[in-house]
Parts: sequence; structure tokens; C-alpha cells
Amino acid sequence: MKQRIYIYSPSSAVRNKAALRRSVARLKAMGHEVELDAAALSSHMRFAGDDATRLAAISRAAASGADVAIISRGGYGLSRLLPRLPYDAIARASEHGTRFVGYSDFTALQNAVLAETGAVTWSGPAAAEDLGVEGEPDDIMQACFEDLVAGQGEGTGWQLPRAEALAQPLEVRGPLWGGNLAMVASLVGTPWLPKAKGILFLEDVSEHPYRIERMLTQLLYAGVLEKQKAIVLGQFTNWMPVPHDKGYKLQTVVDWLRASVDVPVLTGLPFGHVPTKVCLPVGAKVTLAAEGRDAFLLWGHRGTHAHGHGGHDHQH
Amino acid sequence: MKQRIYIYSPSSAVRNKAALRRSVARLKAMGHEVELDAAALSSHMRFAGDDATRLAAISRAAASGADVAIISRGGYGLSRLLPRLPYDAIARASEHGTRFVGYSDFTALQNAVLAETGAVTWSGPAAAEDLGVEGEPDDIMQACFEDLVAGQGEGTGWQLPRAEALAQPLEVRGPLWGGNLAMVASLVGTPWLPKAKGILFLEDVSEHPYRIERMLTQLLYAGVLEKQKAIVLGQFTNWMPVPHDKGYKLQTVVDWLRASVDVPVLTGLPFGHVPTKVCLPVGAKVTLAAEGRDAFLLWGHRGTHAHGHGGHDHQH
Repeated sequence: MKQRIYIYSPSSAVRNKAALRRSVARLKAMGHEVELDAAALSSHMRFAGDDATRLAAISRAAASGADVAIISRGGYGLSRLLPRLPYDAIARASEHGTRFVGYSDFTALQNAVLAETGAVTWSGPAAAEDLGVEGEPDDIMQACFEDLVAGQGEGTGWQLPRAEALAQPLEVRGPLWGGNLAMVASLVGTPWLPKAKGILFLEDVSEHPYRIERMLTQLLYAGVLEKQKAIVLGQFTNWMPVPHDKGYKLQTVVDWLRASVDVPVLTGLPFGHVPTKVCLPVGAKVTLAAEGRDAFLLWGHRGTHAHGHGGHDHQH
Repeated sequence: MKQRIYIYSPSSAVRNKAALRRSVARLKAMGHEVELDAAALSSHMRFAGDDATRLAAISRAAASGADVAIISRGGYGLSRLLPRLPYDAIARASEHGTRFVGYSDFTALQNAVLAETGAVTWSGPAAAEDLGVEGEPDDIMQACFEDLVAGQGEGTGWQLPRAEALAQPLEVRGPLWGGNLAMVASLVGTPWLPKAKGILFLEDVSEHPYRIERMLTQLLYAGVLEKQKAIVLGQFTNWMPVPHDKGYKLQTVVDWLRASVDVPVLTGLPFGHVPTKVCLPVGAKVTLAAEGRDAFLLWGHRGTHAHGHGGHDHQH
């Protein structure tokens, strides 16, 4: 089904214009109508235009009436805009069917919108960075994104690492929230950290495990982790081990986290700064169901009475 | 005057043992009695011993009765220990005359001690990293540290950058707090962020200006910045500009900060991950006095009735 897709730039300037063009071409080839925001290629220092330009772009995306409003890329810039975001316009657009989608820096907007309005936005690909890659985009990412564009999709599934297979089946239900750990941690103590007691998912890039741990201590000491029903870790990539680590690694942090909270911690979620990223509804009530090595996040109608296997498994 | 100096390792493992030995030799050559904690050279992954080992080392430093308890080095590790630090023992030792001194990761302990007990600790050098350098240690750092060891020193002075000379004289008074920005930001929303309404000083290393700005947004949105009487920026060093910056730099962040808060922002404080670092009493009531390009932080008796020029100027 032909859908309307609006591409805009709320964060860093797009330097790779070819990638953005490829994303537009691919979306059109899928049969969709694509509109590029007037400031999508703006540049002001690191940013896709100055603060006023980016705020106006976000407002245009919210007013577009598109089925999907997708960011061109992440980077940095939304933190500066949090006091002035058009929260009501985003919430209204979301209620009227616009799926806002993005990740990384976009996490700040998503969680702030959730905290301010309760509206649902989507963690998922960025146009230039994911849909505009050279060569064929990741097929799982594409399948999940196509479900999102079509307004379909009831969940996602993945395999837990072998060493982390569950001894007991797990099923919990609550609002899904989170995204990029650095952005979530940067919201602690501010008005824009959601008060959700649900399922917190986290990913990050180019952060050494000791920094991941330090950010998690902030969430821990602020009381955020203990009140969740589950913590789901996505991909933490592109960090460099150093000789000083002497055995300290990402798994050390996962072990420390499990010892520090009385909340189930699942790993391996296919989401993060990696090609294979699923789409996840931030702010939606979801069911996390896992048994053995099979884990599912379910948000469709079937999710409300699922016994762990009701959703699509995009790891097909 | 011969003083007792206790060296311990609360954070990262000391890899440069020669530097630690040099610091011991230098302190002895200055006529002091030096005691090296039993676990000062311990190593457990990145850390100077596991959590229990480092907690015990901190307790021994607090029980040492030394005039000065100085960290061997910073790094990472204190964030993990915040719920279990021997706060009362540190506060008692501080009241009985032990000056706890360090910086970087030590910022977490200093501000947590301030939040929990109100006790004063000192931002200043680390033994291996500053006193143990090859060649001659920085003379301003040494002069300030010797004042601290002797229990002397009533303040510090520095020159503001030419472009930031004050049009109006400034004099404010309140508790001094802060230190490493990443550590201070990581305390936001936790029980260990001081509620101080005073003079907040900040420095950091290896953080790109956009990350410095993001950390400052957290302090801003949490209401921390606006309630200060002044913000004093130290040295922000060892970050790499990238082509994507296109004019975005540290000064951009300073300008943004000044536009964002209704609080005086002074720069150029000789403190940070640099050889020239003064000693600063975290938790003490200080006077910040500045006129033209001359700035002073004063905490001696004269500080209470200073008109801006009562303290030592270590930029001699």
C-alpha cells in the first residue's frame, strides 16, 4: 500500500547527501510517496540548521499528515531543543497515525514526548544512515520498517545468547521505553525522563564498557532500574578494548548489572548502531515473553493474551 | 613542617609504578612522612583491586590520621562504590584535619561526601599523575599542594581570557563544589548530587564540546545551574576537532551556556587534566571575586571580608 513518508533533520547536518538521495529513491521504489523537508539538508556548524530551523522542521514533520516521519540521521542536537519541542503537535500527529521513527540522538525526543504527552513514537532506522546505505540495506531492518510503514507488525523476536538461556519462562507487561543509553542517562533528573515502570531497552555506540557502566550507575542510583519489570540490552558496539582493561569487558558490566538489580536483564535485542535494527514502539504497552533462548516483544492485539509466541519473528 | 601523607588507590589500577615511586620520593624529599596504602598497587581488571579492596583502602585512608590523604590516580571506579562509602569516617577524619585530595574520578567521592555529610575535601593533584611525573612537576601545582599540605593557603587567583574581561566587578559567596563534569553530571538525579547553591566549578578531558554541552544541558534542565551564584569553567582538554564541527567549538558551548543561564560564567580556572592545577576546597564556603581580567577564589579568613584581592595569586 502506498504510504506518505516525510524525511526531516532534527539533529546533525547530513553530510552524506548521496545516502539521503538513495534513501528517497529506495522508498519511492517501494511504491511510497516521499517528501523531503525544506531544511533536510540545512547545515549550521554540526547541526542541520540552527535551533530555530530544526524546531521548525520538527513542527513541519508533525504537521505533514504523513504516515511516517523519519529522521535523516542522528548525531547531536535534540538535547538543546527539549524545552521548546512542539510536544502537543507531535502527540496529536501520533494519535492521528503519523509514526515518528528514528534512533540515537532521536531517543531524547522520543522519551521527552513520552514524558510530556504519553504519545508513542518508534525506535527504528534513520533514512540516510540505514535506508540509504550503499549496497542492499539489511533485510530484517527493511522487513520491520515495511511493517511499520504499512501500519502492521505486532512484535519482534530474537534469540538470547546461548549462555543466557532462561531457566524459567518470563512474561512481563508494561510500557516500552529507552533507546540510546547516553541520551536516556542524560535525561535523569530532568523533566523529560519518563516515569515508566515497564520494559527499558538500551543500546549505545562508541562507549567503552566502563562508561556504559557509569551511565547505568546513574540510572541505578536514581531508582530507575529497580522499578522496571525488565531491562533489555541491545547492541553496544564500536568500542575499543585497551590493555588497561585486563579482562574488564561488556559482559563484566552485564554481570555487574544483574548483581545490582532484582530485575530480569535480557540481552541480544537486535537494535542499536548496527545494520540489523528492528522497529520498537516507545511508549506502547508491550509484553516481553521469553523462554529458553527465545525472546519476544509483542505489541499487537495478540500481545495482550500472548503466551510468548504470538508475534512476528523478524529473525527469520 | 613535616607532615604525614597517606597515598591510596580508590579508582583505577596504577600501571605506572615508577610514577608512584617518584611521587613518594618527592614527598619524602620535601621532608614529609609518606605512607603507601597496602593495596595502593592492587589490580583487579581496570580497578585498583575489587570493590571490597578499594572500599577497605578508603577506610584505611580515613583512619590513617594523616594530614593529607591523596589518591594515587583517577580513572574509573568510585561510581560503583557510592552506596557503600565510609561517609562518616571520611567526615570525621576531615573534621580532625585530614585533607583528602584528588581529582577526576575522585569528584564522585568528593561531591557524595559533601551531599551526605557536608565535609570538605580538596580538588587537587593525584600522586602518580601529578607529583610523580618525569621531570620537574609543575611549579604552581607544587606551590598550591605544599600550601595544602602545610594547612596554609587562603585562596587562588587567575587571569580571565582577554576577550572575557568583566565589564562590572563581581563578588559572590557560597559553597564551592563540582570538579569533573562527567562525574558531576553522572550524579544528577541520584542521592549524591550536592544541593549546594554556590560556586560550581567544572573541567573535563577527552570530551568533545558537543558532549560537554550535552552534560551541561542535563545540569541545566535539572535546575542545577540556575541556582548557582557563579559557574567557573576550568580546563577542557584533549579533545579532537572533526571536519563535521564546521565552526562548532568549545567557545560555542561557553556562549550557549551564557545565553542559557542568568548566572555569571567565568573561564580559565587553572584546574583540570593539565599540569597546572591549583587546590580547591570542595564544600567550603568561598568568595569568588573578579574585576577586569583578575579572578580570585578565596577561602581564608580574609576571604570573609575580601574585596577581591585578599588571596594568594598562584599565577605568580
